[in-house]
Amino acid sequence: MSLARGGRLPPGTNAAMEALNASVDVDKELWREDIQGSLAHLGGLEKAGILTADEAQALRDGFAQVKQEIESGEMVWDPRREDVHMNIEARLTEICGAVGGKLHTGRSRNDQVATDLRLWVRRNAQETVQAIEELAAAIVDVSEEEIDTLMPAYTHLQRGQPSRLSLHLMAWQEGLWRDRCRLLDATARLNESPLGAGAVAGTGFPIDRHAIAAELKFSHPMRNALDATASRDFLMEVVSVLAILGVHLSRICEELVIWSTYEFGFIRLSDDFTTSSSMMPQKKNPDVAELVRGKAAKIIGHATTLLVLEKSLAYGYGRELQEDKRPVFDAFEDATLSVRALTGAIATATYNREAMSKALEGGHVCATDLADYLVQQDVPFREAHGIVGALVREAEERGVQLYALPDDVLVAAHPALADPAIRGALDPEQAVERRALIGGPAKARVLESIAEARERWGQA
Amino acid sequence: MSLARGGRLPPGTNAAMEALNASVDVDKELWREDIQGSLAHLGGLEKAGILTADEAQALRDGFAQVKQEIESGEMVWDPRREDVHMNIEARLTEICGAVGGKLHTGRSRNDQVATDLRLWVRRNAQETVQAIEELAAAIVDVSEEEIDTLMPAYTHLQRGQPSRLSLHLMAWQEGLWRDRCRLLDATARLNESPLGAGAVAGTGFPIDRHAIAAELKFSHPMRNALDATASRDFLMEVVSVLAILGVHLSRICEELVIWSTYEFGFIRLSDDFTTSSSMMPQKKNPDVAELVRGKAAKIIGHATTLLVLEKSLAYGYGRELQEDKRPVFDAFEDATLSVRALTGAIATATYNREAMSKALEGGHVCATDLADYLVQQDVPFREAHGIVGALVREAEERGVQLYALPDDVLVAAHPALADPAIRGALDPEQAVERRALIGGPAKARVLESIAEARERWGQA
Amino acid sequence: MSLARGGRLPPGTNAAMEALNASVDVDKELWREDIQGSLAHLGGLEKAGILTADEAQALRDGFAQVKQEIESGEMVWDPRREDVHMNIEARLTEICGAVGGKLHTGRSRNDQVATDLRLWVRRNAQETVQAIEELAAAIVDVSEEEIDTLMPAYTHLQRGQPSRLSLHLMAWQEGLWRDRCRLLDATARLNESPLGAGAVAGTGFPIDRHAIAAELKFSHPMRNALDATASRDFLMEVVSVLAILGVHLSRICEELVIWSTYEFGFIRLSDDFTTSSSMMPQKKNPDVAELVRGKAAKIIGHATTLLVLEKSLAYGYGRELQEDKRPVFDAFEDATLSVRALTGAIATATYNREAMSKALEGGHVCATDLADYLVQQDVPFREAHGIVGALVREAEERGVQLYALPDDVLVAAHPALADPAIRGALDPEQAVERRALIGGPAKARVLESIAEARERWGQA
Amino acid sequence: MSLARGGRLPPGTNAAMEALNASVDVDKELWREDIQGSLAHLGGLEKAGILTADEAQALRDGFAQVKQEIESGEMVWDPRREDVHMNIEARLTEICGAVGGKLHTGRSRNDQVATDLRLWVRRNAQETVQAIEELAAAIVDVSEEEIDTLMPAYTHLQRGQPSRLSLHLMAWQEGLWRDRCRLLDATARLNESPLGAGAVAGTGFPIDRHAIAAELKFSHPMRNALDATASRDFLMEVVSVLAILGVHLSRICEELVIWSTYEFGFIRLSDDFTTSSSMMPQKKNPDVAELVRGKAAKIIGHATTLLVLEKSLAYGYGRELQEDKRPVFDAFEDATLSVRALTGAIATATYNREAMSKALEGGHVCATDLADYLVQQDVPFREAHGIVGALVREAEERGVQLYALPDDVLVAAHPALADPAIRGALDPEQAVERRALIGGPAKARVLESIAEARERWGQA
Repeated sequence: MSLARGGRLPPGTNAAMEALNASVDVDKELWREDIQGSLAHLGGLEKAGILTADEAQALRDGFAQVKQEIESGEMVWDPRREDVHMNIEARLTEICGAVGGKLHTGRSRNDQVATDLRLWVRRNAQETVQAIEELAAAIVDVSEEEIDTLMPAYTHLQRGQPSRLSLHLMAWQEGLWRDRCRLLDATARLNESPLGAGAVAGTGFPIDRHAIAAELKFSHPMRNALDATASRDFLMEVVSVLAILGVHLSRICEELVIWSTYEFGFIRLSDDFTTSSSMMPQKKNPDVAELVRGKAAKIIGHATTLLVLEKSLAYGYGRELQEDKRPVFDAFEDATLSVRALTGAIATATYNREAMSKALEGGHVCATDLADYLVQQDVPFREAHGIVGALVREAEERGVQLYALPDDVLVAAHPALADPAIRGALDPEQAVERRALIGGPAKARVLESIAEARERWGQA
Repeated sequence: MSLARGGRLPPGTNAAMEALNASVDVDKELWREDIQGSLAHLGGLEKAGILTADEAQALRDGFAQVKQEIESGEMVWDPRREDVHMNIEARLTEICGAVGGKLHTGRSRNDQVATDLRLWVRRNAQETVQAIEELAAAIVDVSEEEIDTLMPAYTHLQRGQPSRLSLHLMAWQEGLWRDRCRLLDATARLNESPLGAGAVAGTGFPIDRHAIAAELKFSHPMRNALDATASRDFLMEVVSVLAILGVHLSRICEELVIWSTYEFGFIRLSDDFTTSSSMMPQKKNPDVAELVRGKAAKIIGHATTLLVLEKSLAYGYGRELQEDKRPVFDAFEDATLSVRALTGAIATATYNREAMSKALEGGHVCATDLADYLVQQDVPFREAHGIVGALVREAEERGVQLYALPDDVLVAAHPALADPAIRGALDPEQAVERRALIGGPAKARVLESIAEARERWGQA
Repeated sequence: MSLARGGRLPPGTNAAMEALNASVDVDKELWREDIQGSLAHLGGLEKAGILTADEAQALRDGFAQVKQEIESGEMVWDPRREDVHMNIEARLTEICGAVGGKLHTGRSRNDQVATDLRLWVRRNAQETVQAIEELAAAIVDVSEEEIDTLMPAYTHLQRGQPSRLSLHLMAWQEGLWRDRCRLLDATARLNESPLGAGAVAGTGFPIDRHAIAAELKFSHPMRNALDATASRDFLMEVVSVLAILGVHLSRICEELVIWSTYEFGFIRLSDDFTTSSSMMPQKKNPDVAELVRGKAAKIIGHATTLLVLEKSLAYGYGRELQEDKRPVFDAFEDATLSVRALTGAIATATYNREAMSKALEGGHVCATDLADYLVQQDVPFREAHGIVGALVREAEERGVQLYALPDDVLVAAHPALADPAIRGALDPEQAVERRALIGGPAKARVLESIAEARERWGQA
Repeated sequence: MSLARGGRLPPGTNAAMEALNASVDVDKELWREDIQGSLAHLGGLEKAGILTADEAQALRDGFAQVKQEIESGEMVWDPRREDVHMNIEARLTEICGAVGGKLHTGRSRNDQVATDLRLWVRRNAQETVQAIEELAAAIVDVSEEEIDTLMPAYTHLQRGQPSRLSLHLMAWQEGLWRDRCRLLDATARLNESPLGAGAVAGTGFPIDRHAIAAELKFSHPMRNALDATASRDFLMEVVSVLAILGVHLSRICEELVIWSTYEFGFIRLSDDFTTSSSMMPQKKNPDVAELVRGKAAKIIGHATTLLVLEKSLAYGYGRELQEDKRPVFDAFEDATLSVRALTGAIATATYNREAMSKALEGGHVCATDLADYLVQQDVPFREAHGIVGALVREAEERGVQLYALPDDVLVAAHPALADPAIRGALDPEQAVERRALIGGPAKARVLESIAEARERWGQA
């Protein structure tokens, strides 16, 4: 029943299949880990007596040459050899001869690629963690330098209460700390060795999976050959973690954009982290913040891709898994670049202390403190809240701030407001200092939290 | 308040900013459209008297040279010139001298890039539509060739009723038809000209936006300068449409994978669209289908990225929009490659008529027809459904198929089943022919639908 | 090989299965359409002679009673009857007796639910379109009332050029117009009749699919029984369209939040669309805008769900499809509520003309106009851009705005700047009027676009 | 500048705003935690002397009554009171009188809701972990009972090598183990106390945050008031973890669906976990598996929603956060129901040992073992792979399985194949036993892994 239909294939059909099939353009990114994994595997074959010492040495020399060729750019990557693994093995065999054909004994591309990916993610996660640490250090530095800078705390982007810039910046740092911990948790979880799992159901060659795992600094061999070759939850986890990191970076950038507006004027990014306009000569745009927001959107897309890709796979390797590499590579690149660029932007920005301080003058930011004052005079909080709310409306109608209401209006609202001490409640600086619980904006508390963060991040 | 913090920037910070900032690696994909748009714009400047005829000609000659240099690979793309637009303009100015600096009169990168993107999407959507048409043609061809092949219709992947392979294949085609229509709708909707919108609020130069739109075969100038430069719903729409196409391709591929199993054995993909295993020498894997499923996951991720990217933008161009290009470019490439490769796979596959026909022997596939027979004898459907359900259980207990139950068992279930005509109800071929409404599996109906589809797709 | 394992089921297992299985809590939302579809189907059975006129009338009367019971709240929805279809049929049979069992002749739940869903989406899409029209009307109204309000146009949230509030608002309206068109396109595409497609491969009963389609105001019967019962791209399309609408609403809301800040102060939402704080008595938060942004996130999640849900389905109904209802119902509810609430917020807000006008004084917003002026004096644009850029830096150093630079500084930058006419270039109002192309901010142009929009939306 | 536009509001506008604003329908789910958190807070107020012992006792008694009213269904939830917090406080105040108004002293809805959510997630995560443990127990039980059941291992859904059902099932268990660990990691990370953080910047009342944290079994108070009230990465993390769990469940279900087909016939789900068809009386559909796949799609959508929702928020509570509750509640419900129903399905299914064993007869499943045999005779693996590949083609042409090729054909392919020992390589049972590394299918290894799993899961 062979059909003649094939003869009518539209032009481009076979080229499309070849383009789909070849992955070396993307997965050559794994070359270091592919060689690293192969060296461990050949050590295992040698110990098991499957390779002689001479054969093993010949392969090691061959790999040294391949590595040098790749680093120098001499290596010719051939899409007809499909992927990074076949390209490297083919080049190795050209260099070493027939013994190259022994390397794949007791191994499949399935356990090989799972190993390479785990090594790659481990290495890159370490790099991302380091970048996060540097960003946190920059934030803590600024927090320390700006320790005396007051500003309003906002909710709903409305001025809420007087607060301290450093408290705000240190909140950014708290999220980054959890991002770091998540990344380390994920890295520890994926640090298992698939080598020896074969294609799907193990191998009959007596290689020592424990020794190979130790050689690659994996904590132990994976416990199930099918799981070792078919599972990619480590990728879903790590990219989800990067997506959450991206959300945090994006939130920080939302604020950098808003704080950079003419209207807020709280921050001035340095020239290295802004650009101008092709048409409007006066523009100085907060590009770094916008680009990082854009990258975060991409990482979310990559996390979605991986979940969707995995969701419908039967167990046992499926070729869909070829497509998980680019989302992972891109997610790490986007995340690490973003963290680093933001480090520069935050470290080199100018924080406009006067603008922030001036912002405390509007928005009745001490309304809560006035209500708290009444509570201290034994007015139930809900009632105090209502009294102050009415005073704010009165102030709005008069076109003044709450603190500028005359005494008689205050007293009319509640007799306890006759006490001159209430002027302290209405002073932003005193109001900030009064909020002196752990995690609050009082100067001593923030200095403690800076010290604690330096300790925790190892910045001492 | 300039800070010394910048002096402590960790290594890699500025490199990261540069890497974030430069987009030419990705957006050089727009070079054809960038030149096309610039030629239309300079025609507008010439007509408006802003460029002399000589200046315009010099620029046209310059563009001809730039084009030739890009096509021949001579063009040096410089990341320090940021993007495709600046690279081309800078090279143009090197070639033409000072007049190059006049090209950007009355234009901003914002209306320029919006124009380029619309032209690019229009061109690529046409290509995708053509690929879809070829895939539909391959499906209709197979449907015609396999017009006599019967098989079970499945629900829940369980055999349901006897049906016809061509009916099944033509269902694939119906979804593709809607994908094509969606893509054309989206293309028509985006076919508007942003040129003349400037950065955000128009330009003061008296260029003729209608004429420029006509030159670029846009249906009309966009009606609002801010909308023209800040909106990207055309990208969200078109990539969502590609994601739905991807879902359809993925569903087809789910079936190709299952039909290719040893257990089903309904289809045999040709060697060009399968691969073997690095470890298991006997393997012939349905890689094309798996790769297309993987690509579909990516397109869904790209659609998500675009929605997320846009969602929080204030109006007016934001630099996040730089990041919308790669998802769009990749989505089109992934979609079109997938459609083409699948065309080859479907056209060159062998459809195993015997296996499909044999599958009609198990699963009691005529149970519904038997119930329908009873309904024709005036048994209410719900009652008929119950009677046949009991007969199926009886057959299962005897380890036989429904059609193999002896007459006495049938008659005991309902007297009307004494009629020998019921054997027709239990014959798959007759059962298929009896379902002869529009859209049903009767041969004449499917042939009609094939003819209708050929007409509709212009395959005559 | 029956196992005793079942005996050790943890508590909650069967309850979990029942909870998974029952969908009536969610799908009872379809009751109107379920009755509407059943009435059309029974009309078909009657015409085909499968039901007598008396039987048909009995069923119609029964449905009238069921409808009344549902509307009055008397209907008891029973999760053991699984879904809305079985609940209604069971109640009908209680009312009508055995003839109720004839209704399902020639029909399956598969074509039934596909019909119900199409009818439901059609009805709800019409409602959403109407809500969008009302929102557009509110925007156009405000645009007309605020026709003389100038403000800066922003890019990157930085002041770019002088512009007109109405131009900005009309950009919102343009996006909504495309949302409306997309929704209508999707509705037209899904307006096909699945009835008569049976479970998967048609029915043998001679019902008139065309007549039933016409009865339900569908444009025609679906052309393929498998496609009719297995395809849900109409849901993916319509929810993707709502997600794009959500992105537009979210962008508008991003601006409402920013414009409502103390720092911008461009807009004041009315009390009905803001709320206060439980702790801070002075707060007036732009809740409507934030809630709509939150809803948009959900619609994006629903669009993702539907794509993921469909992606791996083999053709033929699968039970996963039960899960597509809630995302669709919620997406429509979230979208329509959001559009309506935003209509109120925009219609009742106060637009602060003075604050917007005052914002034109900072940010050197006429820099582009000054560059354009030089271009008119035959300075190439790129050179003019450079000259003005240097003047802006000079102004920044002096702590003044561009327009406040003394003549000698201007002349030193370029002799053409000696002309007093340049003061016109630096006047925001003149700058706005000069940008008088289609889509630009000049008053006459915006008024034209308002008139055009009223015509297009049928608001005349 | 008050506008008359408000007078023209379309009907439904205010109702829409009210519907957007009220969240009690959804967030009343938090009632237990709201009371739990309030009791801890009032204990803090009492210790700080802000409430007298009598006042505190009155409030405790009031809460006891509110709790009883909610549990009994007497509580009237009023949407005009917006949310669960205000409903409970209002009812409390009705019961207790004015002292109710003191409860909110030193607290904001912002730290209150953050506390409630953390408590709710902690409790529900524990429930999900327990359900996962029960599912793992069911899988390990079946693995033990089916220890002697051989089957092919599949890659690409093609038969690859002979293996053991228990190895396959234990792979499911491995993924679930990591899901459990991820959920516990996330729970430990979120187990911090926001109480005392106030609205955004702390409170001035001297409550003991450590003591309140201890009372609620949180590990410590959160270190930053802004982070405590504005961060929701704990929700993003936990729902991403559930999404990965959903992917694992979905993959298991993909196999249950395929294994349940007539064609595979590897498994028969019990009646409690299948359903029939409304039209086709013989159907027995694997509904549980399909429904779980559908639920997994939803959880992925919920994870997307949360990432999107958070991504663009400036720090400080924003009302968007109201919308994070339903995705979280639904994700937990969907996940836990799915795990439980799947537990029942797996525990009560019948595993068809004969069908699996018979499947080893086709597909040349011992090809790899034959190649391995040649490698042991010192043929390089790549060469051995080629020799066996040619033999498979020869067998296919002859229409036989590899093991049925006559000796002379084998010897002609390679002299080493003359050895009768090769028949062992071609015997599936021996082939399985030979793969005896850790994680391989040899019986002893799988039994070890079962024992290890029982230990690890605490099933001893």
